[in-house]
Amino acid sequence: MGSVPPRSPLAPAGFPDLPEVDGVRFATAEAGVKYRDRPDVMLAVMDTGTSVAGIFTRSATRAAPVLDCQTKLGGSTGAGAAFLVNAGNANAFTGRNGAEAVEATTGAVASVTDVPVGRVFSASTGVIGEPLSHGKITAVLSDMAARLSPKGIDQAAEAIRTTDTFAKGAGGTFDVAGGQVRIAGIAKGSGMIAPDMATMLVYVFTDAVIGQDALQAMVARLSDQTFNCITVDSDTSTSDTLLVAATGASGVDVAGDAAFEKALHDVMLDLAHQVVRDGEGATKFIEITVTGAESDAAAKTIGLAIANSPLVKTAIAGEDPNWGRIVMAVGKSGAAADRDKLSIRFGDILVADAGWVSPDYREEVGAAYMRNEIIEIAVDVGIADGAATVWTCDLTHGYITINADYRS
Amino acid sequence: MGSVPPRSPLAPAGFPDLPEVDGVRFATAEAGVKYRDRPDVMLAVMDTGTSVAGIFTRSATRAAPVLDCQTKLGGSTGAGAAFLVNAGNANAFTGRNGAEAVEATTGAVASVTDVPVGRVFSASTGVIGEPLSHGKITAVLSDMAARLSPKGIDQAAEAIRTTDTFAKGAGGTFDVAGGQVRIAGIAKGSGMIAPDMATMLVYVFTDAVIGQDALQAMVARLSDQTFNCITVDSDTSTSDTLLVAATGASGVDVAGDAAFEKALHDVMLDLAHQVVRDGEGATKFIEITVTGAESDAAAKTIGLAIANSPLVKTAIAGEDPNWGRIVMAVGKSGAAADRDKLSIRFGDILVADAGWVSPDYREEVGAAYMRNEIIEIAVDVGIADGAATVWTCDLTHGYITINADYRS
Repeated sequence: MGSVPPRSPLAPAGFPDLPEVDGVRFATAEAGVKYRDRPDVMLAVMDTGTSVAGIFTRSATRAAPVLDCQTKLGGSTGAGAAFLVNAGNANAFTGRNGAEAVEATTGAVASVTDVPVGRVFSASTGVIGEPLSHGKITAVLSDMAARLSPKGIDQAAEAIRTTDTFAKGAGGTFDVAGGQVRIAGIAKGSGMIAPDMATMLVYVFTDAVIGQDALQAMVARLSDQTFNCITVDSDTSTSDTLLVAATGASGVDVAGDAAFEKALHDVMLDLAHQVVRDGEGATKFIEITVTGAESDAAAKTIGLAIANSPLVKTAIAGEDPNWGRIVMAVGKSGAAADRDKLSIRFGDILVADAGWVSPDYREEVGAAYMRNEIIEIAVDVGIADGAATVWTCDLTHGYITINADYRS
Repeated sequence: MGSVPPRSPLAPAGFPDLPEVDGVRFATAEAGVKYRDRPDVMLAVMDTGTSVAGIFTRSATRAAPVLDCQTKLGGSTGAGAAFLVNAGNANAFTGRNGAEAVEATTGAVASVTDVPVGRVFSASTGVIGEPLSHGKITAVLSDMAARLSPKGIDQAAEAIRTTDTFAKGAGGTFDVAGGQVRIAGIAKGSGMIAPDMATMLVYVFTDAVIGQDALQAMVARLSDQTFNCITVDSDTSTSDTLLVAATGASGVDVAGDAAFEKALHDVMLDLAHQVVRDGEGATKFIEITVTGAESDAAAKTIGLAIANSPLVKTAIAGEDPNWGRIVMAVGKSGAAADRDKLSIRFGDILVADAGWVSPDYREEVGAAYMRNEIIEIAVDVGIADGAATVWTCDLTHGYITINADYRS
């Protein structure tokens, strides 16, 4: 991995001050799987009565831990739950060794906690295709279990990083119908980011009371509006995992509570935006809003075609208001469009309207807008009411530098 | 456009020695639409009795000349045909002005030749969204018509270039069942290259005798094996046009002649490969062969997922044998795959087999292979008999440099 890349210019000022979530305890350790002198293992243990919901990559070559999590989801909430993550090795495409490593590490977590192995959800992130030295992880688990603490979510966010240039966290204390609940989440991801899922690893904890089925349905809904609306490079991880744990420790029931769903949405969207802000080589945060499409799904298709277009992304990197490339991306998306009804805005600037450049548009105004760090592109397709918003970053020399030399 | 980019390291030694095709005459001119001191307009005029077949971009925002060509295709062969191309301005997303420019330029060709306007096929390539100064083109057409010559296909190939670093031509004299025929083709394209069509502009001429319907069917078939199997950056042009003209001047009937179809295939594939070899910033020519897929279509889907993956393309740019990213791309393609039946080869080197790295594989052997200029990747999905081959290039700093500053 060589030296740590410099912090993204789009990174937030620092890690947020997250609330402690009753019923969740964390520990991290330096197992030395790949990295040296930094934490690379994270363990979170939740009390009995915790609901767990999850969303995973749809990749046909998904990693062993993902397959294991998928089989465990929906299990009994009676005995608590645990999340185990290691960074540096993805334990993906590692044949039989992959499943053995999952069995060994999740079994070891069960043996040092009171969580049954069927409720231990593991994830591995990093290089694909190298066997995971799971002995290095199991060797530190006993000590980790002894150090579990309700504090330390910031250290947990640090421990799950790979090429991330900053640790990602979001959360807060929220008023809902039944009282106050706390939500705190962490994420990692900066490359190989595309729907579905548009992240690598995300863990969100809350002390709200909500049944597992209701939580799963809510998380699936919110994923489609958050993590599945971001893309860095159109590549899809073999390891993408989102897990949400609700311990119920607050005693506040949030089933059917719109305020809770809004709060969880906002935490998830914040984390999703942070993943984009840490996009490999990113210098611009780009929000693309598509309206007037045939359907919401068509709007999302168009939005992602723009967001994934290398020519759009390089133009923005070069601060070039090259709206012709947006027209191109709309055209290639496969969604219904009528060239002569299309309009395009950069921020508040009407660039193109009714199939041609706006008579009032001036190139120098567009060029000045492109010097912003946050770029808002609005496309109105003009044929119906479908709408969607997606987020991405620009494509720069930094992306090439990072990815042409990742393993050396 | 600034200075001319250096010739691609993957370029052929020079422009090939192409046969003259009876019944076709060329002229080029410096109209100064955008470029200065170089030819930027190409006119080809074919004798009466010429069949014309065409394949066009499927973009929903395709340019005015493409729409015009599509309506003209299938017209009478009685009166010859003409191809008019200008470089520097794509006449795309130019509203009503776009259709007016096509009407003006094709009408002007008709007025200075004996070709009716319904058989004048135009194309424009270059920047999107700027009105085409069609007066500059019509002003030079009379002089061009006076200079039409059976020689000069090499100058025609020069005149249609935009960001191309070399002029592209392919062809030869071929023995077919009925005698000898000549085929000569030219192409331009280096960015915004993806199916369908995977090129920008291609013109192929032959003196073979073949009816328009038979030629159209053959060209559609061959496009799927050639231009629709290449990708540079997954972006789709608004202007992609392939036109094939058969003048019949040889008197050799090639309807149903497999040797002719093979010859035309080879010319088209040669041109397609040259487009990849001129991919913006390319330093490696990459051939991806997928076998064992659920169907040929599934194999092509997997091949293009690999070919379009920024992470695969940057790894190859960095000469990193990062086969894990190929596993990732197979997984994200959406086509059926079984992780544990997958095998991957670099050239003759078995890298991964049955879901894991091959026990005989050595990283240094893979790394040495990656230093080649031509990289062959073979993926066997291991579940059925579907096969496909696609071609692409690597993703380098050169691509970013070219595309972050195209218009300035």
